[in-house]
Amino acid sequence: MLDAAAAFKQATDGCRKKLPLLSGRTTCNLFFENSTRTRMSFALAARRLGADCVDFSAAGSSLAKGETFVDTARNIEAMNVDLMVVRHATPGTPRLLARYLKTPIINAGDGAHEHPTQGLLDILTIREQKRNVKGLTVALVGDIAHSRTARSNLWGLRKLGAHVIVCGPPTLVSRRWEELGIEVAHDFDAILHRCDVLNLLRVQFERQTTRPFPSVHEYALLYGMNGKRLKRAKPDILITAPGPINRGVEITPDVADGPHSVILDQVTNGLAVRMAVTWMTCELHRRSGVTLSHLQEALKESGEDP
Amino acid sequence: MLDAAAAFKQATDGCRKKLPLLSGRTTCNLFFENSTRTRMSFALAARRLGADCVDFSAAGSSLAKGETFVDTARNIEAMNVDLMVVRHATPGTPRLLARYLKTPIINAGDGAHEHPTQGLLDILTIREQKRNVKGLTVALVGDIAHSRTARSNLWGLRKLGAHVIVCGPPTLVSRRWEELGIEVAHDFDAILHRCDVLNLLRVQFERQTTRPFPSVHEYALLYGMNGKRLKRAKPDILITAPGPINRGVEITPDVADGPHSVILDQVTNGLAVRMAVTWMTCELHRRSGVTLSHLQEALKESGEDP
Amino acid sequence: MLDAAAAFKQATDGCRKKLPLLSGRTTCNLFFENSTRTRMSFALAARRLGADCVDFSAAGSSLAKGETFVDTARNIEAMNVDLMVVRHATPGTPRLLARYLKTPIINAGDGAHEHPTQGLLDILTIREQKRNVKGLTVALVGDIAHSRTARSNLWGLRKLGAHVIVCGPPTLVSRRWEELGIEVAHDFDAILHRCDVLNLLRVQFERQTTRPFPSVHEYALLYGMNGKRLKRAKPDILITAPGPINRGVEITPDVADGPHSVILDQVTNGLAVRMAVTWMTCELHRRSGVTLSHLQEALKESGEDP
Repeated sequence: MLDAAAAFKQATDGCRKKLPLLSGRTTCNLFFENSTRTRMSFALAARRLGADCVDFSAAGSSLAKGETFVDTARNIEAMNVDLMVVRHATPGTPRLLARYLKTPIINAGDGAHEHPTQGLLDILTIREQKRNVKGLTVALVGDIAHSRTARSNLWGLRKLGAHVIVCGPPTLVSRRWEELGIEVAHDFDAILHRCDVLNLLRVQFERQTTRPFPSVHEYALLYGMNGKRLKRAKPDILITAPGPINRGVEITPDVADGPHSVILDQVTNGLAVRMAVTWMTCELHRRSGVTLSHLQEALKESGEDP
Repeated sequence: MLDAAAAFKQATDGCRKKLPLLSGRTTCNLFFENSTRTRMSFALAARRLGADCVDFSAAGSSLAKGETFVDTARNIEAMNVDLMVVRHATPGTPRLLARYLKTPIINAGDGAHEHPTQGLLDILTIREQKRNVKGLTVALVGDIAHSRTARSNLWGLRKLGAHVIVCGPPTLVSRRWEELGIEVAHDFDAILHRCDVLNLLRVQFERQTTRPFPSVHEYALLYGMNGKRLKRAKPDILITAPGPINRGVEITPDVADGPHSVILDQVTNGLAVRMAVTWMTCELHRRSGVTLSHLQEALKESGEDP
Repeated sequence: MLDAAAAFKQATDGCRKKLPLLSGRTTCNLFFENSTRTRMSFALAARRLGADCVDFSAAGSSLAKGETFVDTARNIEAMNVDLMVVRHATPGTPRLLARYLKTPIINAGDGAHEHPTQGLLDILTIREQKRNVKGLTVALVGDIAHSRTARSNLWGLRKLGAHVIVCGPPTLVSRRWEELGIEVAHDFDAILHRCDVLNLLRVQFERQTTRPFPSVHEYALLYGMNGKRLKRAKPDILITAPGPINRGVEITPDVADGPHSVILDQVTNGLAVRMAVTWMTCELHRRSGVTLSHLQEALKESGEDP
């Protein structure tokens, strides 16, 4: 998938041009949580592949009339959409739908569980900048307890051979992550010098029911990335963040907008990843097994040489 | 229209493929009530005909600035949309707009008055399954008083020669329907064995100002379709419902998901009906009189042989 | 720009046909205030140029998660949209974004400051009807204090040589406009006979914190355009209004729907202006300096002869 995303990025001049491999197809965005970049990113990915993207809006829907969630999705399926992109506050919702529907489902974030395309775009960005993920030390800093992004990153980074540290206050970073072979740190300054990549997670106030630390100011002091810490970091440290960022909390503006930051490259790579995932999912629905050579063939047919 | 819908369904491989007969045209959805399937169905119908579909959202509109409803519609007309699809809580709204505008208007549901494309898709589904509507006994069960679907079904079914029964509690099914030659029943079990088709209407709690029955449980007991009742029905009984369904109220899950149910086929047929209605309405605006042979000609020109 | 808009109007048969000069491009509507015609007009303009238009909805966005406005816009930019159309309640917002982004920004109304495309479409309509703007006496009547439309009209009308009068109650029309060389009038009936064009501005109750006049009835009596006043006006007076109109306040129905009114022509011209502005802005981003002959060339290439 990472290779496919890289191929799409190249073939579309950095996600600028259309590549109408999915003309005549329709994707559907079912988003039940706030989202700027993910919803728009999937919509743009679909359109740049030549597909239509319809938006399902929960607010004006029949869910208000007592229809079950699965019935709503089955109704959309009956209109022959080719793909559904689902975001929901309840972990497991995309899997639930996948069990009841024949239409392929893409998880665009389910509660604090997973956010696979975010994980892929983070890793694509790291690979682009560092050539190889293997052997890198990557620290996920912040609200690990409520972060679906952290979970999706963990699986991907470890599969590709990175050493992963989760770092944050004990109330947000459990010691039990060690059981999975992940390093746990509560002191950011103690691990900073070893890190090749930082992934600065937003404190998800909207998912918290208790206050996990005394004040935002104290959090920023202990775990926020700032110019002072940057000086003690490796000279080629890479700063990533899934966004939206809270300037002055997990990251200061000078770092967010500085030369180490690739936060906006991540957004562009998100488009490439979603083009790849959308295309592959549609293709996998037609035949079993899609390889990179299928994509190269499709690109060649469309007049693009990756 | 039913024939046109059937032709569209066939020519698009069951409403899967695009058939760009309306390239360059623009339709506009003006929805002032909650809707999942109807709004999306009209949007998809337009796009599968190659047209653009813009959504008018009442929430962010100038109606909040004191503009009249007709002026809002006239403004949209002045932007040269080719068709407006209107849903509104007030009966007669589409007719009102049709009087003031030159743009063709399609009624997508006006209060408890009519919902013509729903009636057409119900009848298309019956015709598909039973070959012929003539001579069938069709019972509309439930909240007849608040159901625009019931009204549109009534006219269509009777025109095509079906015997229609409206069935439900006296508070929701008036005896006065008999004046139109329609059979009225308050005892579901007394008519069930005679029915070829059931149309199970949702109890529209959101339109009711009084509670028309003691409890949802009692309603389900007296008028809900369930496995027990299915055993006493004709062996080839057809179960339809306009949706959204309230599982456990007007229909139990085993019936909704069972072999007699064509609820999801109705949704697919809705697309076919809306493609037909959209195409015919646009064509009728260009010349007087559109027949099925015009469609067959258009399909042939576009490379499709119906 | 007016010439380009006129060329687009002609080449698209009065803004009816598509003219795919921007195929493969994507525009983004960022609207943070209510809007019917402007948002839809920009969306339709983009689509009629063959571009995609994605809608950014503030309601379901990451602004709710603490992201800054500029960061939200930068994220959209990172997805490689070609143009952003911005409406915001805060004056200067489009300029602020233009300072931080490389993507071209179009101002679709910023508070009570400016609404340039509205000014252009008003002037295009006047030019269409009166051949020449030079020498005309144009009165802007109503809520000048809160009207961005008035400001954009003022610059354009005076640049093209019109004599401009601003007219309304002293609470809504400051004497200080005279410092800019504009005539200020508080008595509508005293200036009416001299006017070639009226632009009847809506009283923007939603922007007012105090009641600037005793009652709506009194306002209508003193400043509303009605049949009686029409009789005392020049026989070829032109009635324009930016809309949405409040019937019975700044204009009576007989005038709004009468032969002197070009209110709905303005809406159609809005499409032409937005096609021109969208096309020119995209072109200017590719090369410095776009002239009418570039457009004529592009139209010729696309098979249209303006």
